[in-house]
Amino acid sequence: MTSSKTVAVVGAGVIGGGWVARFLENGFDVALYDPAADTQSKVEALLINAEHAYSKLTMAPRNHRGALTYAKTLALAVAGAELVMEAVPENLTLKQQVYRDIEQHADEGAIIASSTSGILPTQLQAAMRHPERLIVTHPFNPVYLLPLVEVVGGELTAAETIDSAMGLFRAMGMHPLHIKKEIEAFVADRFLEAVWREALWLVNDGIATTAEIDDAIRYGFGLRWAQMGLFETYRLAGGEAGMRHFIAQFGPCLAWPWTKLMDVPELTEELIDTIAAQSDAQSGQYSFRELERIRDDNLVAILQALKVNDWGAGQTLGRYEQTLFDAGAHRNDGAEPTDEPLLTVERTVPPDWTDYNNHMNESRYLQCFADASDALLRRVGVDANYLANSGSYFTVETHIRHLDEVAALQPIKATTQVLSAAGKKLHVFHRLFHGDGRLLATAEQLLLHVNLTTRSASEPTPGVLTALRAIADRHASLVVPEGCGRAIGDPR
Amino acid sequence: MTSSKTVAVVGAGVIGGGWVARFLENGFDVALYDPAADTQSKVEALLINAEHAYSKLTMAPRNHRGALTYAKTLALAVAGAELVMEAVPENLTLKQQVYRDIEQHADEGAIIASSTSGILPTQLQAAMRHPERLIVTHPFNPVYLLPLVEVVGGELTAAETIDSAMGLFRAMGMHPLHIKKEIEAFVADRFLEAVWREALWLVNDGIATTAEIDDAIRYGFGLRWAQMGLFETYRLAGGEAGMRHFIAQFGPCLAWPWTKLMDVPELTEELIDTIAAQSDAQSGQYSFRELERIRDDNLVAILQALKVNDWGAGQTLGRYEQTLFDAGAHRNDGAEPTDEPLLTVERTVPPDWTDYNNHMNESRYLQCFADASDALLRRVGVDANYLANSGSYFTVETHIRHLDEVAALQPIKATTQVLSAAGKKLHVFHRLFHGDGRLLATAEQLLLHVNLTTRSASEPTPGVLTALRAIADRHASLVVPEGCGRAIGDPR
Repeated sequence: MTSSKTVAVVGAGVIGGGWVARFLENGFDVALYDPAADTQSKVEALLINAEHAYSKLTMAPRNHRGALTYAKTLALAVAGAELVMEAVPENLTLKQQVYRDIEQHADEGAIIASSTSGILPTQLQAAMRHPERLIVTHPFNPVYLLPLVEVVGGELTAAETIDSAMGLFRAMGMHPLHIKKEIEAFVADRFLEAVWREALWLVNDGIATTAEIDDAIRYGFGLRWAQMGLFETYRLAGGEAGMRHFIAQFGPCLAWPWTKLMDVPELTEELIDTIAAQSDAQSGQYSFRELERIRDDNLVAILQALKVNDWGAGQTLGRYEQTLFDAGAHRNDGAEPTDEPLLTVERTVPPDWTDYNNHMNESRYLQCFADASDALLRRVGVDANYLANSGSYFTVETHIRHLDEVAALQPIKATTQVLSAAGKKLHVFHRLFHGDGRLLATAEQLLLHVNLTTRSASEPTPGVLTALRAIADRHASLVVPEGCGRAIGDPR
Repeated sequence: MTSSKTVAVVGAGVIGGGWVARFLENGFDVALYDPAADTQSKVEALLINAEHAYSKLTMAPRNHRGALTYAKTLALAVAGAELVMEAVPENLTLKQQVYRDIEQHADEGAIIASSTSGILPTQLQAAMRHPERLIVTHPFNPVYLLPLVEVVGGELTAAETIDSAMGLFRAMGMHPLHIKKEIEAFVADRFLEAVWREALWLVNDGIATTAEIDDAIRYGFGLRWAQMGLFETYRLAGGEAGMRHFIAQFGPCLAWPWTKLMDVPELTEELIDTIAAQSDAQSGQYSFRELERIRDDNLVAILQALKVNDWGAGQTLGRYEQTLFDAGAHRNDGAEPTDEPLLTVERTVPPDWTDYNNHMNESRYLQCFADASDALLRRVGVDANYLANSGSYFTVETHIRHLDEVAALQPIKATTQVLSAAGKKLHVFHRLFHGDGRLLATAEQLLLHVNLTTRSASEPTPGVLTALRAIADRHASLVVPEGCGRAIGDPR
């Protein structure tokens, strides 16, 4: 009965729903239990946004999505799951009751993980029959995009439970942070609490509105914290003298008058009204789903930007993408060449690929064709190892014909026909299609094999040449493409 | 004596130096005064990093850099400046002394701005002869990249002083945030203080190391805060029920036990040693300048990512870029066509334009050529107004020859030769050069004028066609480029 890729999620709020999305996008089958009547409609709306985000998150071939079932009972949800993720409200008694139910129906070996943002795992596991398998795995909204998950064991949690959960999260493109000493609110939420207290005072005392506070964050230190945290940032604030100088300079401020507002502000009805009204004025022009999508688009763009720099959350995305590429390459292993052009690109047009004419910019067409060449080359054995030892192919000439437009978020795919592969030269013909079959553009390309040390033309390895020729032989039966061998302006 | 674009900076630490860089990059001449012996070497190292960042920040034609002078005295620095930026250590008595000296030598109309991160402007201006011109303008490190500047007036500050400073900062690509009620530490630094207090406790109590704390920030909420602040983020955390639901859910936590650590931790020598050692273990493998550059590369990439989404700090960058484009177009106004190919692109290769072959990726060549076509079209009148009313040009065919490689951060430029402009058709030939004159690639392109409503071919306006023909006529004397009219694989 036990599948190796089945998880259960208990609770379908913003956090539980976010876990569902991340598991599904990573190929897990998910059984979800939440007694609320609107569970399915809420989760489906969230999954649409998550799918939108993932369609732009990576160019790598994505995992096949898992299947979601809405279980009628908690018992049905947890049976056979290798991990049960609890995401019910922050109430110790309620959570302990839920664990009792889970333990009654889940497999002996299942990990039971809590999404609590503050309750100690030692308290959570206190009444369990098998407390060693209880762990806190505290994620951050949106769970399907943000890499951080705080992993905290209680006094009775087994070391294997922690290791196994860390491995699972890493494989899903997350950054599990093992908090080794449990305290209430763990690490990240202590900061969020501290900032929230200050924010309440600032609104309460009329110093700044919610919109002004948000601007004070997102135009300033928020940009810093997306890539370096507090200490690495302050190391730089100290100038060349570094951390010690910074503390010496900053330290005395702690005794300044502005530390006085450290009491807990009272959350009066009046203060709640003020905050809600200011928040409406600031963000009320967007629906909840619109605002969620704006946030996701921004997060995807930031993650991709950091990926280019191989830093922080972008490094996590890069590693995740590599595992997807490897898995995709594995799926092609042993595939025999056919006499059809190869499917070399299959993706969605990211919104930032469009230009002021509201269609995909011409340079992105060439990016698709370059990706198509790369996919062909990976298939015949030009991988990281080959690049390091034997060389690479450089494009020396390209002829593109634009035949139709394509807008953002439309599905596109490219096929590649090998016209000839002889010695150092590789001659290919790519076609770019809309998902509905319309031909958008063609590109004829001449590539040259190059020694990456001397940067001059060289022979490919016999293995690569043989693999290319096998494809070229099968493609020899295809007609020479219309548009091939043309100069600019030749009549069609 | 008074120039309209001269500012003085007093104090050359991380903040003063950052101001110098931002002013210079925006065309201001800067007179800097700091009595420290190593001022010049420190500032020059910082300016190299700032120049590196600006070379990648925007594709728009940049401002001509202003000139920097190291003034021997404060009197020499401030004479003739329209704004004097004070960035000396955080000490009220010292600052008041500096204002006395400034007032003695500065022009009557000069704005005197303080970079203080916490002292009230009402206190700063208390002993001044002309307190109405004193303003707090609190920036964030790195000052040359982060858009936020908190603008705070004291009881005696004139409204015009605030307006005029806000306008100046906006023109420099910043986001001035007017804090209307002065409190110690203003808004942003109250949050930074609160977070710093929590961080000291966490390190002090051995809950997490500096590296773990930084990871808890940059893999999680730091990514959120780069684009939305606290309140807009929490609006989404409440799910469809919104802000009120979020507060109801989160509110009770304020009374939970983790609010107990709100005392000010004592900065013992031991705690300072622990922090410094952990920070070395975390970041010590980078030199100060290296780490600074990593941070800047990340910030530039994040700003650009948000620019694509037209959101937050990216929207600020987009507006700034538009003013640079407008200023650049203005510089070309009335330029007569010559019989030389037009210089249409002049920039540096951004690091993220390179690929696994360690050179500029082929698709970026086409991006340069597309930018070259855009520059030509802007020059003949295809601007935002034209796009809205009369149409645009679409590329229908491109033939690229790659002749040489180019690496990251190398200077490149493109020229454009108009081969013919007749009716709907525009036929151009671009050349891409390395800054040292080497020809890197050529592109022959055929463009078609299109009606943006019907998406079908249409005639350009007579004005645009006349302007294109004037250039084509001058270019008629140029030889037909080698490589023009070629099909792929034709012998050279």
